Amino acid sequence: MSRYSRLEPTQRYLFAFALAQGGEFAFVLCSFATQNGVFTSDMANLLVVTVALTMAAAPILMTINERLVQPRFASVLPEREPDEIEERDNPVLVAGVGRFGHIVARLLRLNGYGTTVLDHDAEQVETLGRYGIKSYYGDATRLDLLQTAGAERAKLFVITIDQEEQALKIVDLIHEHFPQLRILARATSRQHAYELLRRGVQHVYRETFASAVDLSVDALVALGLPKHRAQRAAQLFREHEDASVREMAQLDTEDMKGYVSMARLHIANLENALASDKDVFQHSADAARDAGADASAS
Amino acid sequence: MSRYSRLEPTQRYLFAFALAQGGEFAFVLCSFATQNGVFTSDMANLLVVTVALTMAAAPILMTINERLVQPRFASVLPEREPDEIEERDNPVLVAGVGRFGHIVARLLRLNGYGTTVLDHDAEQVETLGRYGIKSYYGDATRLDLLQTAGAERAKLFVITIDQEEQALKIVDLIHEHFPQLRILARATSRQHAYELLRRGVQHVYRETFASAVDLSVDALVALGLPKHRAQRAAQLFREHEDASVREMAQLDTEDMKGYVSMARLHIANLENALASDKDVFQHSADAARDAGADASAS
Repeated sequence: MSRYSRLEPTQRYLFAFALAQGGEFAFVLCSFATQNGVFTSDMANLLVVTVALTMAAAPILMTINERLVQPRFASVLPEREPDEIEERDNPVLVAGVGRFGHIVARLLRLNGYGTTVLDHDAEQVETLGRYGIKSYYGDATRLDLLQTAGAERAKLFVITIDQEEQALKIVDLIHEHFPQLRILARATSRQHAYELLRRGVQHVYRETFASAVDLSVDALVALGLPKHRAQRAAQLFREHEDASVREMAQLDTEDMKGYVSMARLHIANLENALASDKDVFQHSADAARDAGADASAS
Repeated sequence: MSRYSRLEPTQRYLFAFALAQGGEFAFVLCSFATQNGVFTSDMANLLVVTVALTMAAAPILMTINERLVQPRFASVLPEREPDEIEERDNPVLVAGVGRFGHIVARLLRLNGYGTTVLDHDAEQVETLGRYGIKSYYGDATRLDLLQTAGAERAKLFVITIDQEEQALKIVDLIHEHFPQLRILARATSRQHAYELLRRGVQHVYRETFASAVDLSVDALVALGLPKHRAQRAAQLFREHEDASVREMAQLDTEDMKGYVSMARLHIANLENALASDKDVFQHSADAARDAGADASAS
């Protein structure tokens, strides 16, 4: 019924389910009709039961509409027009101005590199604007928008959004239309890092990895390890992990057993690498001490 | 009905809603009863309508059960007993073995520091175990579990879980019962970092901050900035951001206007700091070049 009136698709469902609530009036109408002999009492009984059950179903249907039907429409709602992009010759484009992207934008701008930032969250764009961090409202998966932003002339494209699929979509778009752009991308997980690497993205940053390493270095120092030793261990760990992620990205994802045994091997290798590094480290420290002892003896 | 049988609470709802599906049999029963004069046709009609509507409602009720009712029970389901903790004298306890926590555990263990890890996600504990990374299933917000894990004798407590409230709860628990423990904590957002700092946690790591800085350094180098310059800029940025977060944590959270103007001020200050650092840097580079020129002239 609502299909033929001029309701938005999302309102149609609300309307359809709300019809069920018109039932109360039917009770009144029904008892009135029976008293006047329009309905037989059989028919009236039938109607009353139907109406009662429909009414009982109404709140349930409303809940279903709210929780299950409406969310599906969220993505097809008419969108606001993207902001007009004033900067068109910046060497860097950034997708996303969230907690990850705004740090990148600030650091690059502070060093004098023009950086154009797009984000599809209008509220976030507005909020960051209040802090003096400029970005444009717009969907970075749209080719026309990237063209307007000067993707043909830029050098770097930085992907910092946290939706994995969208990030991969942008990668494909750039590879197809702007092959000169170098991509640096945030990965939300190890699996996502694999996907990015398999698509040929060379610069991939697992989003919580570096902070976890930073924390570990401070923990090691708090436990009594000299700072340079802690930093050296972290450096080795980073290099090893980076190589491991790159290698494992090439594995067959279906072969879970092979994957697990490769991961175990990498972890064991790292243990050996750190242990032998410690020996070398210890050895050179001893040598230095001995040299000092020799010098004072002479 | 199901309340009196021995069904688990979650199964009761499934059972109650499934009863609605028993209706098909009622049709058969009903027409049989009418033919044998047990029901009048009025009664039969009424019953048929009731049954038909109940049947129509059944799939809807099943969906509601699955989507809305069952999830509410997820948190009250009888919990598996926590794993028995075998290590009780480790210097480090870690809450959480996700993508953040397992990095910390690995780096500390690789350097020879015994690290006991607790996680309330049994599946994650199992998965990491397959890669040779040991952790215990258990809720780190439980005082008795922390005691068993040796919190009285440990030196550090590392919080790496991503639920903000739970993380704060652990902080309070530790401050009350194990004041000797130094806490290092992952923060999921700037606001969460403020909360942790206000509670007196000195070591706070915003989870995506360091990776964003890492990416920025590589971007700066790709744009042509010498590596040491990029690293120096990142270092200044980190120090400045750290001081800024600590200072802003003390601000009145209700005073949004004061907050925004303070944030703008910090951002502007950083710009000046980097600019003057660049001058100093440039100056010393020039001085070095001049010195070299002098040396070659002499």
